[in-house]
Amino acid sequence: MLKIIQRWFIRYSEQDRKLDKAVTGITGRRPYNIRLYRLAMKHSSVAAETVKGFKESNERLEYLGDAVLGAIVAEYLFKRYPFKDEGFLTEIRSRIVNRESLNKLAVKIGLSQLVEFEGRKRSNLSHKSIYGDAMEAFIGAVYLDKGFHFTRRFIIRKLLMQHYDIEAVIETTTNFKSLVIEWAQKLNHKVEFNISETRGSKHNKQFKVDLSVDGEVVATGNGFSKKKAEQDAARKACEALDIP
Amino acid sequence: MLKIIQRWFIRYSEQDRKLDKAVTGITGRRPYNIRLYRLAMKHSSVAAETVKGFKESNERLEYLGDAVLGAIVAEYLFKRYPFKDEGFLTEIRSRIVNRESLNKLAVKIGLSQLVEFEGRKRSNLSHKSIYGDAMEAFIGAVYLDKGFHFTRRFIIRKLLMQHYDIEAVIETTTNFKSLVIEWAQKLNHKVEFNISETRGSKHNKQFKVDLSVDGEVVATGNGFSKKKAEQDAARKACEALDIP
Repeated sequence: MLKIIQRWFIRYSEQDRKLDKAVTGITGRRPYNIRLYRLAMKHSSVAAETVKGFKESNERLEYLGDAVLGAIVAEYLFKRYPFKDEGFLTEIRSRIVNRESLNKLAVKIGLSQLVEFEGRKRSNLSHKSIYGDAMEAFIGAVYLDKGFHFTRRFIIRKLLMQHYDIEAVIETTTNFKSLVIEWAQKLNHKVEFNISETRGSKHNKQFKVDLSVDGEVVATGNGFSKKKAEQDAARKACEALDIP
Repeated sequence: MLKIIQRWFIRYSEQDRKLDKAVTGITGRRPYNIRLYRLAMKHSSVAAETVKGFKESNERLEYLGDAVLGAIVAEYLFKRYPFKDEGFLTEIRSRIVNRESLNKLAVKIGLSQLVEFEGRKRSNLSHKSIYGDAMEAFIGAVYLDKGFHFTRRFIIRKLLMQHYDIEAVIETTTNFKSLVIEWAQKLNHKVEFNISETRGSKHNKQFKVDLSVDGEVVATGNGFSKKKAEQDAARKACEALDIP
């Protein structure tokens, strides 16, 4: 109730009215405090100095939103995959909340249209991470405006479930093998994947794959198919050899 | 209500009764689901395989607790320091939730006594990160057992406010200058801190300090005292030169 009253006391500009409508469209609920969202859409390139040496931009909200998003996605994956270990959960989470995914997400939900930054009028080809940063700042604003439970519902129902195909995110492990191969070609190393062990019955076979670089085994992977075992080995090699 | 009923259906062992008491002492509230806390105290070295290839240890809870703790500390600092930028907030948060601080915290609140790990009976000199990991897992358990708001209150009132002197945490920036000096000695570089500018009136002086390595300025710091400006420059140099 107090928060609804609060809304009456904020004077809306034409731009705020537009923002209010956009936020309502995105979150499904009218904002209580439009100023939070206004701030979330303000990139540091257009921020004015308020206190001496302190620029009021969306960077603080981004810090908050990043943490809140991380916790909510962590819990979501924790509950969705009760038999997966923390390495898997950490990996999938980082794929969901990385800069690139968040940039795309910001474009999909239309947030990219709302961000203010220098040069917007001049060109559309701006630093793309601006959108991902604004996405996090927006989540920070929703959190401060509406609280934890609303934010959790918003993130799970309106973002994760509508805009992510998590099974597809998981399947994209295919990258690791090609990452290792590309890396080796660049640096003139020889990479080999060899099956070192096959276990189990016909319908429940398990494979063990050794990944060697220049003849030396650097990682070993396991999986219920040859492909999965290779991916597992490649993922471990990427970690061990610091392949980006 | 449902959760209280849930409690009746869990059969308590002698050890569980002890754990229940300890958890009540730490959080101030009796656990609903003691199994969560039991799991949180189980290091992977003593975990049994439940499902094929899946060990049930506190590692998943640690992943969850880490994320929840990060978000709650982020919000706490965000609200406590409305005029500090996200670089400051990120830095202070990482000092509060780093492995070392969490290890100490686990010992302070008595959690270290409850953790099960291999070799506990043989010696007290175990891998110390076990306690910090258990601290995070414990927070994960509290979160699943009692929800977000209880966990937030628990973290802020029982952990942050009772066991951290945040102002002191902030003051420990003193490390940066010595970090730079140590680094330079190790690699045989010459480091100098020079005041390049003094501004402001007598009671409101501001200093600008240049930090040079082998005669080349690598960072510039500002501050309301010479010491603070030096620290600021040293912090920036650590970032720029990747000094750990």
